[in-house]
Amino acid sequence: MKFCSHCGSATLEFRIPDGDSLPRHVCPACQTIHYQNPKVVVGCLPEWEGKVLLCKRAIEPRCGLWTLPAGFLENGETLVAGALRETMEEAGARIGSTTLYTVISLPHINQIYVMFRGRLESLDFGAGPESLEVCLFQEEDVPWDELAFRTITRTLRNYFLDRKLGHFPVHESALERRAPIAPEIMGAG
Amino acid sequence: MKFCSHCGSATLEFRIPDGDSLPRHVCPACQTIHYQNPKVVVGCLPEWEGKVLLCKRAIEPRCGLWTLPAGFLENGETLVAGALRETMEEAGARIGSTTLYTVISLPHINQIYVMFRGRLESLDFGAGPESLEVCLFQEEDVPWDELAFRTITRTLRNYFLDRKLGHFPVHESALERRAPIAPEIMGAG
Repeated sequence: MKFCSHCGSATLEFRIPDGDSLPRHVCPACQTIHYQNPKVVVGCLPEWEGKVLLCKRAIEPRCGLWTLPAGFLENGETLVAGALRETMEEAGARIGSTTLYTVISLPHINQIYVMFRGRLESLDFGAGPESLEVCLFQEEDVPWDELAFRTITRTLRNYFLDRKLGHFPVHESALERRAPIAPEIMGAG
Repeated sequence: MKFCSHCGSATLEFRIPDGDSLPRHVCPACQTIHYQNPKVVVGCLPEWEGKVLLCKRAIEPRCGLWTLPAGFLENGETLVAGALRETMEEAGARIGSTTLYTVISLPHINQIYVMFRGRLESLDFGAGPESLEVCLFQEEDVPWDELAFRTITRTLRNYFLDRKLGHFPVHESALERRAPIAPEIMGAG
């Protein structure tokens, strides 16, 4: 943020406003305080006869890796509406009813993931413009080493474990910044 | 948004960018697309020996009405950290462990409420600068007609019902725009 979006001033300050506790972009010309807040990513874990639907990403970041259909919640949307929209956009798939499943905070990138479980209505699905492929996977065929995001890995691991236990509670958790990988683990040792 | 916050141009367009499906503020000078997304409000339902803690608001909107401690999630925060921060700021109260409880979409005002349950660590609490009073209430004393927000009413109603049932599942729901109240209900008929 270099200019005030309200009055166009180029002299924005980054300081703690009176009565506040965190620094904000503040315009000294028009006094507007420009707040910046985390974004919500919504998505689905679509189920079909013991399989789960995954999309191979056609766009960066993580192009070519697999994900559950998910994307940024839009203004005017409920969480469920956003999850169903992303599932249609990325996988051309319809979900019957949805149930809240994982809620994951990613404070280092200012995102909150909210993932739902839901049963596919039919096998009528296919890759949208942001996907290269859309496939159903049995648990043993999930490409664990080629998943795009840790939120997706965590959601899928929870799912297959909960399925064995016969109970799908909502899982609330956080993923902090990924620790640097030690050289010996990377095979350079 | 009247000016581009990236280049300062005053000729912002509001149109659907190529490959997108919704209108955005787009800068024709520098091509920046300014996305706007819902904000997350996080808060707590603090419990103490059968009572719940409520705050009387000292600020607008709904100044003078009662609420659970809650506010906007900040960049760099987890949901739990934000809920604990708001509980400290508004009620001077510490919560031991928290459990996710209600998740409520408010699409007409572009907000997602995420409320946790948690036990107060002690009776050492008091009104912060945004509260006039902070009190513990038995169920029968909750000022139902003086609650500030429908999300708070819903969270408290869920809580007292679940307590009778002995089970506190996560409740995911939406509140749409409030229907206009018919004149006869308002006492004008």
